[in-house]
Amino acid sequence: MILFDNDYTEGAHEQILERLIQTNREQAPGYGLDSYTKNAKKYIKKALDREDVDIHFISSGTQTNLIVIAASLRPYQGVITADSGHILNLEAGAIEAVGHKLLPLPSADGKIYAEDVQQLAESYERNPANFHKVQPGMVYLSNPTETGTLYSKEELKALKTVCEDYDMKLFIDGARLGYGLVAETNEVTLQDLTNLSDVFYIGGTKIGALFGEAVVINNKEIQRGFKTVMKQKGALLAKGRALGIQFEVLFEEGLYFEISKYAVAQAMRIKEALFDQGIQLKYEAYTNQLFPILNEDQIKQLQEKYSLLLFEEEDETNSVVRICTSWATASGNVDALIQDINKL
Amino acid sequence: MILFDNDYTEGAHEQILERLIQTNREQAPGYGLDSYTKNAKKYIKKALDREDVDIHFISSGTQTNLIVIAASLRPYQGVITADSGHILNLEAGAIEAVGHKLLPLPSADGKIYAEDVQQLAESYERNPANFHKVQPGMVYLSNPTETGTLYSKEELKALKTVCEDYDMKLFIDGARLGYGLVAETNEVTLQDLTNLSDVFYIGGTKIGALFGEAVVINNKEIQRGFKTVMKQKGALLAKGRALGIQFEVLFEEGLYFEISKYAVAQAMRIKEALFDQGIQLKYEAYTNQLFPILNEDQIKQLQEKYSLLLFEEEDETNSVVRICTSWATASGNVDALIQDINKL
Amino acid sequence: MILFDNDYTEGAHEQILERLIQTNREQAPGYGLDSYTKNAKKYIKKALDREDVDIHFISSGTQTNLIVIAASLRPYQGVITADSGHILNLEAGAIEAVGHKLLPLPSADGKIYAEDVQQLAESYERNPANFHKVQPGMVYLSNPTETGTLYSKEELKALKTVCEDYDMKLFIDGARLGYGLVAETNEVTLQDLTNLSDVFYIGGTKIGALFGEAVVINNKEIQRGFKTVMKQKGALLAKGRALGIQFEVLFEEGLYFEISKYAVAQAMRIKEALFDQGIQLKYEAYTNQLFPILNEDQIKQLQEKYSLLLFEEEDETNSVVRICTSWATASGNVDALIQDINKL
Amino acid sequence: MILFDNDYTEGAHEQILERLIQTNREQAPGYGLDSYTKNAKKYIKKALDREDVDIHFISSGTQTNLIVIAASLRPYQGVITADSGHILNLEAGAIEAVGHKLLPLPSADGKIYAEDVQQLAESYERNPANFHKVQPGMVYLSNPTETGTLYSKEELKALKTVCEDYDMKLFIDGARLGYGLVAETNEVTLQDLTNLSDVFYIGGTKIGALFGEAVVINNKEIQRGFKTVMKQKGALLAKGRALGIQFEVLFEEGLYFEISKYAVAQAMRIKEALFDQGIQLKYEAYTNQLFPILNEDQIKQLQEKYSLLLFEEEDETNSVVRICTSWATASGNVDALIQDINKL
Repeated sequence: MILFDNDYTEGAHEQILERLIQTNREQAPGYGLDSYTKNAKKYIKKALDREDVDIHFISSGTQTNLIVIAASLRPYQGVITADSGHILNLEAGAIEAVGHKLLPLPSADGKIYAEDVQQLAESYERNPANFHKVQPGMVYLSNPTETGTLYSKEELKALKTVCEDYDMKLFIDGARLGYGLVAETNEVTLQDLTNLSDVFYIGGTKIGALFGEAVVINNKEIQRGFKTVMKQKGALLAKGRALGIQFEVLFEEGLYFEISKYAVAQAMRIKEALFDQGIQLKYEAYTNQLFPILNEDQIKQLQEKYSLLLFEEEDETNSVVRICTSWATASGNVDALIQDINKL
Repeated sequence: MILFDNDYTEGAHEQILERLIQTNREQAPGYGLDSYTKNAKKYIKKALDREDVDIHFISSGTQTNLIVIAASLRPYQGVITADSGHILNLEAGAIEAVGHKLLPLPSADGKIYAEDVQQLAESYERNPANFHKVQPGMVYLSNPTETGTLYSKEELKALKTVCEDYDMKLFIDGARLGYGLVAETNEVTLQDLTNLSDVFYIGGTKIGALFGEAVVINNKEIQRGFKTVMKQKGALLAKGRALGIQFEVLFEEGLYFEISKYAVAQAMRIKEALFDQGIQLKYEAYTNQLFPILNEDQIKQLQEKYSLLLFEEEDETNSVVRICTSWATASGNVDALIQDINKL
Repeated sequence: MILFDNDYTEGAHEQILERLIQTNREQAPGYGLDSYTKNAKKYIKKALDREDVDIHFISSGTQTNLIVIAASLRPYQGVITADSGHILNLEAGAIEAVGHKLLPLPSADGKIYAEDVQQLAESYERNPANFHKVQPGMVYLSNPTETGTLYSKEELKALKTVCEDYDMKLFIDGARLGYGLVAETNEVTLQDLTNLSDVFYIGGTKIGALFGEAVVINNKEIQRGFKTVMKQKGALLAKGRALGIQFEVLFEEGLYFEISKYAVAQAMRIKEALFDQGIQLKYEAYTNQLFPILNEDQIKQLQEKYSLLLFEEEDETNSVVRICTSWATASGNVDALIQDINKL
Repeated sequence: MILFDNDYTEGAHEQILERLIQTNREQAPGYGLDSYTKNAKKYIKKALDREDVDIHFISSGTQTNLIVIAASLRPYQGVITADSGHILNLEAGAIEAVGHKLLPLPSADGKIYAEDVQQLAESYERNPANFHKVQPGMVYLSNPTETGTLYSKEELKALKTVCEDYDMKLFIDGARLGYGLVAETNEVTLQDLTNLSDVFYIGGTKIGALFGEAVVINNKEIQRGFKTVMKQKGALLAKGRALGIQFEVLFEEGLYFEISKYAVAQAMRIKEALFDQGIQLKYEAYTNQLFPILNEDQIKQLQEKYSLLLFEEEDETNSVVRICTSWATASGNVDALIQDINKL
């Protein structure tokens, strides 16, 4: 069985493993004070073209989300998110467990729009009895979204403006950021993300790392005490080097972008094959995720050799399926899949 | 500078790195459902000689402590700990952040005793207005303790009995467990720990792993929903294999014990050298930690070549210093240190 | 301006104030250990015909909800509620602030139904990756609901059965319970509520008391440590007598039911007047709340003399308005309102 | 049995009850928007001689403490308190339950001193690995303290200076504030308290009210969203009038001070009687609490007619007992007690 259901089915990029071996017996101080972590921060700051941000490395996406939100909000504040948001549906109540309510906005394509955010924030402001309500204190979005769509630069700017108007922080979950940054239709640079958000992160787990996300904090208020919040939530590894080394390798010479491009190119090959068969995609796809609408027979046929994610029902006879590539997707497996798509 | 200040200054045991490389391109399901994790659990259960326990792998000790405690207690319950307990002093309020009060007991040697625990629990029970107080719901201890001391089997049995008498759970932090299990004076087996506790963990970070602790849950009540609590606290790695592979290697053929023995043997060599110089230890030392009492000159002399942890002041002229060995301590470095101790 | 917008616009029933005066200089122990509180519990147990339940008095509804939920659930569990539920929309994130996610079910009439609850619980159970999700651990409903509708005995029984099947607790918010119990269409007794729920409460604030709700706990697990959880959440009044005296007066000789009947009778008079004018109600109304659909002119006309709650928009020209009566509604004010309704 | 064990054994001052009756049928908006609450705030602001503070009324002291602390701190911050502090020992873990660690300072007389606070804050600042520690973010003290002692103006000023130097907030628990303000040795005015603290409260429960504390918030940061935090913790009464009316009566014409004086005068009479018998007090006593050191016989003799609180053991034969007066203490009961003291 060949797995195409997600982008974390293999280990780490081999350059990372090699570096782990090379450095293995070097003695280093703990808790992120090692030189690998310092280098990793330096390389990322260079990529962002910003020296005044804080960077921290955290083991998982859910952990990053809960720590960022806990460090950003006061108790009476909540988080606006798309109703398809990862923090709403797939984190076992992690955000509520740190005390904050999620304020979902309906979304057809995984994105939220400035207009809807503005309306929610404004309705809160206008409500004289709003002390019965949680105040929107942060806007959370992911880019690419859960369904692989991308924000335009204008959309992000508009969201940033609303956030400023209503004193909300903007937090961008970049678990698959690399795959978005290299997309053909992408307009947004790492510098844009830094400047337009209060805090965002650069996903490693799904893009070359064994585990780890790099949080970039622009907002001074969130910077304060952040490392202590990390410790409090159990996110400071004694051997911080394990995270430092990985991001050092990924950002030293652009490996992160190179492997992101590879993964997206593989996805685009599959997309073309699907289009050739007249198969439609549920969501616009320029990153590493494809959401074809397939009928029962097609699904059954593919499932004989491939593991795919059944994402949602489309209608009585068709379903939306997720096909994921990653930095580790074997080109031969893509060849095989394309051949089998051609037979559908 | 040679580091002797803690037991997490190097990376991972080379066998672990090799296995990471061998398995790197194998596709595996996420979130701990992979075969490496299953094997690791199998090997550990065999070492425990118990099939009916639950085993989970968590990235750090603080994370393990907060998850275990959150999963074990109801809101009105607190945790009895030595006043030198790691959860009390060195986890940035992690336990309080999940809502539970710590109930410290004075401790001279890092250990707590059944008698003192019984007295505290009894005074709570006897207090008719105890609804103003947090109920002791769990006893936390570490073995080896923060100061490297070890519990005897009788001491653990007595604690277990008090816990049963007062409906408290017993939780043993084994961040350095391997170093305790192989100590010359140790009386307690892995099976004993399983049977005498409700939950304990086998530390990997300090004993061969790059990161990771293996939690063993004996108590059915704590087992329920534990994996969801892990997810909620951000502790489920997408690539659960990263933890699974490490513990698979450590427990497949006894590597965990072998490298523990090596570390302790190195510590014992240093201990002998200290004794030869007439230097006293603050705490009984049969594991990988030594706490010699040194005067200012001796410290200055050693600090020229070695990094040591200044642990606490002994009196106006002497301090207690911590010297740590680990599975990764180079034998040559120990030779050098011994030579320099001989010159003190 | 005459207020009909809610049921807490006046103080307390005069018999309560008289009793406060009579007992004022009697010395009593604090924190609910006084004889008034004991009597109040005795009278309520008699009304419930159950001796083995626990009863506690809490100052407000939100406080009651958050304490009950905190005392009932483990960290990975959440609460199923109607999407119109008070805990979801009007409690400033109180439930999330004690760490629990709310799992809303769509509801047209303020009620939730066993079938929908079953479907949600079943979909959780069937999901092999449900550790990414919060487990439904409790079903919350209010009776009467936010829109004044009532559960039939069959509906409650069906919900209880689902709760038992999926190991969920059933919690009934009775902030307006009295007004429901005396409704013409009501089928459910206090005994039924006790037997069919794990925990419920009898609202005082809206029915005769200055403040206070009486929680009835059937489930032994929730009973344990409940008073300590109350203290922990700041709900134990030093002068517990303040709550005890109020419920003593309300339940000594049936005052609670008598004044409930009065309030509902006044509401029914208004309902008849609305029907006479051909005005429709949005929700079935047999308790103290009416939700007429009025056009802009009608609303403007009534608002000259009466304060009403604009509840929701019905369509472009009509809105749903809430008219509330209570134990304290002056019969003359109802006469006046009816006269003015007749002129619409 | 005559109760002298605490200051909440009776109901409310009769003027409050009368006002409740007078206003009972007046219709008022809910949740603190009523005119009584507005008046109460106006009167208190006048007493403080400050217009720019925020005032809120909360039902109990524990509730006030947990709300103030939750509204003041970020997750990584803790609260410095005397080791005799109410929040540490008698609130069932209320502060930990909102996520914050308490940082106790040893105290012989219930007070904490600027020097000790400074030392703790400085040791935190100097620690390069302080991310393992909770940051001191607030200093909590009560005045009068748990043992009835009072802070001098100099002491408070010094504490305020340390708080400013280390970016900590100063929070003064005034559960018995009135009894302190009227003490013979008191140097501190309400205006001083406002200016020297970030937030403090004026206790009502123990001084004339049936329940209720008036929080005075000087710090703009704590003011933000405070009412929503109150709602979130269940502290907003629907009938906010219940609190508003009480503080209106207490502060309209100085009743609060008048009844405080009465209570203290009664305590001073008892103190004199104790001194006449050669009985020593454990703590300096100028407020409504006395802590005489009595032997077993003396205690037994008094306990025949009086209920007293056994506070702590002094030595093998003597104990410290608490005798409390209040606004409600009957002068005749004090006469009786004095007579019986004279017989010891």
